[in-house]
Amino acid sequence: MLNFVYDNKTEIIFGKDTETQVGELTKRFGKKVLLHYGSGSIKKYGLYNKIINSLNESNIDYIELGGVVANPRLRLVKEGIELCKEENVDFILAVGGGSVIDSAKAIALGFYYDGDVWDFFSKGIRPKNVLPVGTVLTIPAAGSESSTATVITKEEGELKRGYGDISLRPKFSILNPEITYTLPNYQTACGAVDMIGHVIERYFTNTLNVELTNRLCEGIIQTVISNTPLVLKDNNNYDARAEIMWAGALAHNGLIGTGREEDWASHGIEHELSALYDIAHGAGLAIVYPAWMKYVYKHDLDRFALFANKIFGIEINNNDLEETALKGIKALEEFYQEIDMPIRLNDINIDNKHFDLMANKTTKENTRQLGSFVKLNKEDTIKILEFALK
Amino acid sequence: MLNFVYDNKTEIIFGKDTETQVGELTKRFGKKVLLHYGSGSIKKYGLYNKIINSLNESNIDYIELGGVVANPRLRLVKEGIELCKEENVDFILAVGGGSVIDSAKAIALGFYYDGDVWDFFSKGIRPKNVLPVGTVLTIPAAGSESSTATVITKEEGELKRGYGDISLRPKFSILNPEITYTLPNYQTACGAVDMIGHVIERYFTNTLNVELTNRLCEGIIQTVISNTPLVLKDNNNYDARAEIMWAGALAHNGLIGTGREEDWASHGIEHELSALYDIAHGAGLAIVYPAWMKYVYKHDLDRFALFANKIFGIEINNNDLEETALKGIKALEEFYQEIDMPIRLNDINIDNKHFDLMANKTTKENTRQLGSFVKLNKEDTIKILEFALK
Repeated sequence: MLNFVYDNKTEIIFGKDTETQVGELTKRFGKKVLLHYGSGSIKKYGLYNKIINSLNESNIDYIELGGVVANPRLRLVKEGIELCKEENVDFILAVGGGSVIDSAKAIALGFYYDGDVWDFFSKGIRPKNVLPVGTVLTIPAAGSESSTATVITKEEGELKRGYGDISLRPKFSILNPEITYTLPNYQTACGAVDMIGHVIERYFTNTLNVELTNRLCEGIIQTVISNTPLVLKDNNNYDARAEIMWAGALAHNGLIGTGREEDWASHGIEHELSALYDIAHGAGLAIVYPAWMKYVYKHDLDRFALFANKIFGIEINNNDLEETALKGIKALEEFYQEIDMPIRLNDINIDNKHFDLMANKTTKENTRQLGSFVKLNKEDTIKILEFALK
Repeated sequence: MLNFVYDNKTEIIFGKDTETQVGELTKRFGKKVLLHYGSGSIKKYGLYNKIINSLNESNIDYIELGGVVANPRLRLVKEGIELCKEENVDFILAVGGGSVIDSAKAIALGFYYDGDVWDFFSKGIRPKNVLPVGTVLTIPAAGSESSTATVITKEEGELKRGYGDISLRPKFSILNPEITYTLPNYQTACGAVDMIGHVIERYFTNTLNVELTNRLCEGIIQTVISNTPLVLKDNNNYDARAEIMWAGALAHNGLIGTGREEDWASHGIEHELSALYDIAHGAGLAIVYPAWMKYVYKHDLDRFALFANKIFGIEINNNDLEETALKGIKALEEFYQEIDMPIRLNDINIDNKHFDLMANKTTKENTRQLGSFVKLNKEDTIKILEFALK
C-alpha cells in the first residue's frame, strides 16, 4: 500500500425529498447564488420549482445560467465566470448531472483567477481560491458530486481536458434517487458504465498489497452490475436507484483509490472520442474498456483473473489464467450489451479516419504516455482504437 | 435503504513517516496544544520525541497530560478540562489508541461547557462548541480516529457510557502502520475483534435493500480476518498492518452504516463487562458476540446464512439455513480462538455473580431496550450473558 491522504469534506444528504433542504444548506455558504443547470429537463419534471421554492424560503438571492450540455463547454464556463463577477455571486448551486457540476466547478475555479480559466486545464496550475459549490444530483454517473475533478471541452481544437483540485469538492451534495426516475434508459446505462469505469481505473494497478481497496472496488462494481438491469426494467425501482446512486458517488470520491496507483488511460482515450464525435462519455467508455483490456491483460494475468472471478464469478483456471482473463473481459462486454451499450466504434458509426489525430491529441504528439498499469504511447493508443473498431 | 446524511471531514494522513507532519497539521488549527497520551509507551518507542520535535519545528506551544488508561476515566477528563482552561489551550492532540482519543474528545466536549461534562453522557445534550482535536493513532481498533464517538467510564458506579456528536470527528488523524509494530499481540487481536464488532453492529440490520453497504461490510471484515493472523506471526509486516489500520478506520467512520439501522446491543452489554471488570473492550466483545448471535440468529436466518457464506465461504444450505447460520457463528468463534481471544466469560474467570447488576445497568433497571435488530430487555440480556458463560 502506498502512502496517501484521504480528505473528503463533501456532506452527502441522501434520500427521499432531500432536495427540499437545498435552501437551508445553501444558506450556510452563500447569499447570492448562481443556479447552474442544463437543458431544462429540471423544469420539465418539477425539480426546478422545488429548488426555487426552497431558495426563496431561505431568503437566498439567485441568478440563473442554464444551457450546460453533455461534454460541457468552455464558452459557457467563461460566460458563467463573467456573470458571477458582475453579480457578486458567492456560491454556485449546480442542479444536474456530471456535466453541470463540472461546469460549475470550472466557473468556481475561474472566479478568483485573473487569467484564462483554461490555464488550469492546459497548464495544471493550482488555484489560490475558488467559489464554493453545492449540488443537487440528477444523473448518477460522473461522481463529480463529491470528487475533486472537472472535465471541460474547449471548442477550438475539440480539446476535452480534466482537472482536479481538492478545493473543488462540493460543500454539499443532495442525492435523491427519486429524481433519477425520469432518466432515459440510455442515460442510466451510460451512468453505470461510467461508474464501473471509475472503479476499473483504480482496480487495475501495479500496487501490491491493496486487499481492502480491492474488495471495496469489487463491491461497488458488483452493486452497479446487479442493480442497473433492475432499473432499466422498472424505472421507478427506488431501492435499485438508490444503490446505483450511492455506488456512483463512492466510485469516484477518492476512497477506493487510497494507497494505490491509478491508471486513467482509458479515460484519456475516451475523452478524445467524445471531444471529436460528441458522444456520451459512458457510451465511449463501454467501447474503450474492452479494447484496452484486450491490449493490456497479459501485463498481469493474475489481476485480470481476479477481476473475472470476483466480479463475474468465473472460476479461476490456474492452468490457463489467460482463459480466465479473457472470459472476464467477455463477461464485461456482455454486461454492456445487456444494458444496450455499444461495445465497438462500428456500433456508433465511427470509423478509423481520425485514429491518428486522436492518438496524437491524447499523447500530445507522442510526447507523453497514458496510464500507469501499462504505459501507452501513440502507437499503443492507435492499436487500442483498432481493437475497438469492430 | 433509509435516508441518511454522511459527513466526515476528518483528514486521514496515512503511511510511513507521516507522524513527522504533525506539527504542520496542528498549526492549521491551534497555537497552544494539549498533548494527551496514555501510559508512556509512546516515550518507550520514540514516538513522543518525534511528535515533540515536529511541534517544536512548527513553533507550537504545548502542555502535556498523560495517564489515560484503557476504559478511560472521567476523573482524568475533568482534570484535562481544567488544565485546558487554565492554560488557554486551543487544540488537543491525542497520541494513542481509542482510549486516548476518546479521552481527548471528552475534554474537547467539556471545554466550552459550564456544567459537568458527564451531562453529555448521561443526558445526551448537544454541545454548542467543542475544542478541535487531532490524532496520531497508535492502536488500530476503536475507529475513534475518524468517528463521532467517545466512550468514558465514570468511576463512581462503574458507569461506562458512549456519546457521539459530529463536532467530535478529529480534524486530522495520522495513521502510520509502522507505529503499530510494537503492539503486543494481545492488543492487536483485541483491536481486530473491535473492528469486526463495529461492522457486525451495522451488518445485522432489519433494513432491507442495502446491497452496497453489505458488500462494504463484508470486504472490511474479510480484510481484518485475513490480515490479523499475518501480523500476529510477523509483527513487522507493514502491508498487513496497513490493511488492518485502514480497515479499522473505515469500520467506524460512518460509511458502512449509511442508509441502514444499526444495532449496538452487544456493545452495550460489553461496556458493562469492561466497566465492572476492567477487561479490554476487544476481549469482552469476543465473548459477547457469539453469545448474542446464538440468542438472536433465528430472527433472520437469511442474514446469518449470508454472513456465514460471505465472510467464511460456508456454502448456504437452503434446506437448512439454521445449519448454515450456526456454522457461521462457530467460524467466528474459531477465528477469535485462532487469534488467542477468549470466547467465554469462563476463559477470563468471570462468573455469573453480577449478571443481574450488569443487566440492570445496561437496561437502566429494565426501563430501556438494547439494540434494534432484536430489541433486548433485562431478561434477554441475562440470557445472553448466560450463553457467554462457558
